[in-house]
Amino acid sequence: MNFQIIVRFTGILTFFLGLSMGAPLAVSLLFEDNCTQPLILAMAITCFLGIILFAFTKNQKEKQLNHRDGIAIVTLGWMMAGLVGALPFLFAGVTPGFTDACFESISGFTTTGASIITDIESLPEGILLWRSLTQWLGGMGIIVLSIAILPFLGIGGMQLYKAEIPSPVVDKLKPRISETARILWKIYLLITLLQVALLLGGGMSLFDAVCHAFCTMPTGGFSTQNASIAQYNSAYFDFVIVIFMLLAGINFSLHYRLLKGDLKIFGKDSECRVFLIIVGAFILLVTLDIYGDVYKSLFQAFRFAAFQVSSIITTTGFVSADYEKWPHFSQLILLVCMFLGAMAGSTGGGIKIVRIILMVKHGYQQIFRIIHPHAVTTVKLNGQAVSTDVLGSIWGFFFLYMGLFVVASLVMAGLGLNFITSISSVAASIGNIGPGFGLVGPIRNYLEIPMAGKWVLISCMLLGRLEIYTVIVLLVPEYWRR
Amino acid sequence: MNFQIIVRFTGILTFFLGLSMGAPLAVSLLFEDNCTQPLILAMAITCFLGIILFAFTKNQKEKQLNHRDGIAIVTLGWMMAGLVGALPFLFAGVTPGFTDACFESISGFTTTGASIITDIESLPEGILLWRSLTQWLGGMGIIVLSIAILPFLGIGGMQLYKAEIPSPVVDKLKPRISETARILWKIYLLITLLQVALLLGGGMSLFDAVCHAFCTMPTGGFSTQNASIAQYNSAYFDFVIVIFMLLAGINFSLHYRLLKGDLKIFGKDSECRVFLIIVGAFILLVTLDIYGDVYKSLFQAFRFAAFQVSSIITTTGFVSADYEKWPHFSQLILLVCMFLGAMAGSTGGGIKIVRIILMVKHGYQQIFRIIHPHAVTTVKLNGQAVSTDVLGSIWGFFFLYMGLFVVASLVMAGLGLNFITSISSVAASIGNIGPGFGLVGPIRNYLEIPMAGKWVLISCMLLGRLEIYTVIVLLVPEYWRR
Repeated sequence: MNFQIIVRFTGILTFFLGLSMGAPLAVSLLFEDNCTQPLILAMAITCFLGIILFAFTKNQKEKQLNHRDGIAIVTLGWMMAGLVGALPFLFAGVTPGFTDACFESISGFTTTGASIITDIESLPEGILLWRSLTQWLGGMGIIVLSIAILPFLGIGGMQLYKAEIPSPVVDKLKPRISETARILWKIYLLITLLQVALLLGGGMSLFDAVCHAFCTMPTGGFSTQNASIAQYNSAYFDFVIVIFMLLAGINFSLHYRLLKGDLKIFGKDSECRVFLIIVGAFILLVTLDIYGDVYKSLFQAFRFAAFQVSSIITTTGFVSADYEKWPHFSQLILLVCMFLGAMAGSTGGGIKIVRIILMVKHGYQQIFRIIHPHAVTTVKLNGQAVSTDVLGSIWGFFFLYMGLFVVASLVMAGLGLNFITSISSVAASIGNIGPGFGLVGPIRNYLEIPMAGKWVLISCMLLGRLEIYTVIVLLVPEYWRR
Repeated sequence: MNFQIIVRFTGILTFFLGLSMGAPLAVSLLFEDNCTQPLILAMAITCFLGIILFAFTKNQKEKQLNHRDGIAIVTLGWMMAGLVGALPFLFAGVTPGFTDACFESISGFTTTGASIITDIESLPEGILLWRSLTQWLGGMGIIVLSIAILPFLGIGGMQLYKAEIPSPVVDKLKPRISETARILWKIYLLITLLQVALLLGGGMSLFDAVCHAFCTMPTGGFSTQNASIAQYNSAYFDFVIVIFMLLAGINFSLHYRLLKGDLKIFGKDSECRVFLIIVGAFILLVTLDIYGDVYKSLFQAFRFAAFQVSSIITTTGFVSADYEKWPHFSQLILLVCMFLGAMAGSTGGGIKIVRIILMVKHGYQQIFRIIHPHAVTTVKLNGQAVSTDVLGSIWGFFFLYMGLFVVASLVMAGLGLNFITSISSVAASIGNIGPGFGLVGPIRNYLEIPMAGKWVLISCMLLGRLEIYTVIVLLVPEYWRR
């Protein structure tokens, strides 16, 4: 463990988060929204904190980062972002207290999108932009984490993706991460701008277009409207957002290869193929289920089914219809989507399709082994054999995910919440979705959850977002031993 | 594949099932309950079918049974038992039709205990005994299956138990199974008799005592009373049944070792220790949760908590209180119990504690490996290293179990059932518990489930009871290839 480096990195991150508050500050000045002072205060404190952490630690360029340092930087970085990100909400007085401010901020940086704010439209523009920006920045962190960092830390089977983006720097972790990050962020920015343009083209205001694009690419789901995307009641907006939610749910290294000219990459990649097939199948099933009883027009049924399935499976959490009024079959499909999640290497959360594929293949292999006990078999992905280490890591992840879900649901129920609220709030938090069912359903929010429950959900968001292992490993005494 | 042997074995089994109908027939004559003729008819048809199957197949003593034959015998055997077991219900006219008769019978032989009969007390005594007997016979099948057969077929990690009961015959499957079965059935009979004695001692009628003991040892859960054990409202009966449900949930090879003089075996065995700790902890939590609001007396709260937790976690399914009136926390604990199940090698269903232990240990190992990527670690149970083959088998099982749960729940919801009924009826069927929540709650039954749903649940009962693999392997084309 190298505390100097860890704290120094956290300091740099904090400082840049402080700087990024300049954007909402500018907007605040522009709109004269009365939250200029709180934003200046938050920005000053954050930058100052960053400088302090940076200044009081030594620069140790000669030292290499090891596994443990990487894990500590990631986890502490996200926690720190959640804390300083809460300052604007707290100072502007838009959240009832510290817990709520942290909830909103961590929900942002983990790209969850669960909110405790009831009247979103009454928020000052500066705060609205900050809310969206936390998600956009969180999303930037996530693609770098999942494509450039986790594979090298060997976490949750993400070792699979060690060589996804070619880089001139192969051996050293730090320069390689910067190189990969640069490429990914260009793509991320490019798609965001494209979405802003398309939303503007449909008549959305520039401010709302930017805010919604900022919350689509990270599969975040915060909206500037009380009723989320349903407020616009526009098929055009719905379908534009569907397309960008799905793009955000696809591995960003595939976007990279697409831009490099490999136009058939989405069809060639096993995970992407399965992801799109699942999305298509679920949209079809939900369309058929809600057509007739709930929506008289097939087009409307398809539109709302496509939106809600895409929104939940990519773990975005935008809402275009009150899906709690849908038949239970469709609701159950959405609940299943919460667990599945999108592709690895995307900004989406959940268990992720590649893990599901490998678990299905492993399950089939086990059936095959009963028939041929002495046959030597391997699980393959995209034609490559997957090592038992990776599989073991994935099984461990799946079990920890389900275990966390069960334990956290029990705690929520123990706090007095009803069955569906308990399980769906936890599923929506671990999977970084946002809305759930019951008390935390699509037309409600997380305000009424008791304080202890909010901290449980905050923990779930962080654990889920950082692939569980990254956080939980810090709780093991072995980690702290020299 | 050796069809001659498979059919011959099924014939023998069918014949013995026919003979066993002699017991309800005798009871029917004794009580003059008007179901003598239907029972004679069912018995005659079953015995005749058994003789036909036996007579038209060649005796091939020189041929050894192989893996595939074993799997086919087990699965076809259970299906056949379910079918012929339905005849008494069908002929006596106590079930509305064929589906319902099969449901009741398969629910019996899989020791599930889900019923479609509303007025149980109006049933003729002969039918009541047959209903209990299906469970008792099913339980006899299960302990032999889980201790003597599955370990040799290498199914679901049960390879772990290859040498649990020492036997003079080591190599050959057939004589070894008979030897082990003989030992296990003696224990099974002994504990059943003990329970009958204790229930009689509390004033239960001989008939009811036998029927309830017949449904406790196999963790079955059929009762002769409409309100199950709640009908007696007796703390004595409740606690006697709690003790025997827990005994039935313990690996029968531990009972064997206990009888051989190893008095501390329950404490020495890791799985048993964890099982009893979980049961204790859940009873404590539920007691505290229901004490005050639901039950004014601490003793009553403890009594009902102990009963319901033991009943569900051992997958028995007896009911002593309407647990749907309990707070959601307690209900969620019971739902979790449905998945956990009891010990491997017991008559209980569910995922089973040993698998949970090994998955937790494997999960921890994965966390450890992130800290020490190059360390060589093994998962141990009772001091012995567990092979990666066994772990792979267990992960496959867990995933198939959860996958089956999700898919079957979706189908049930697609048939129009509500959320809680869909998931709990499936969980209660795969786990072989019996009662669930909602439409299939503790004071209701499965009659109102649509016909297609009943067949889904029948499939779930069989899949769950035979550790999924044993059934699913028959659906793989590879199995049928030479």
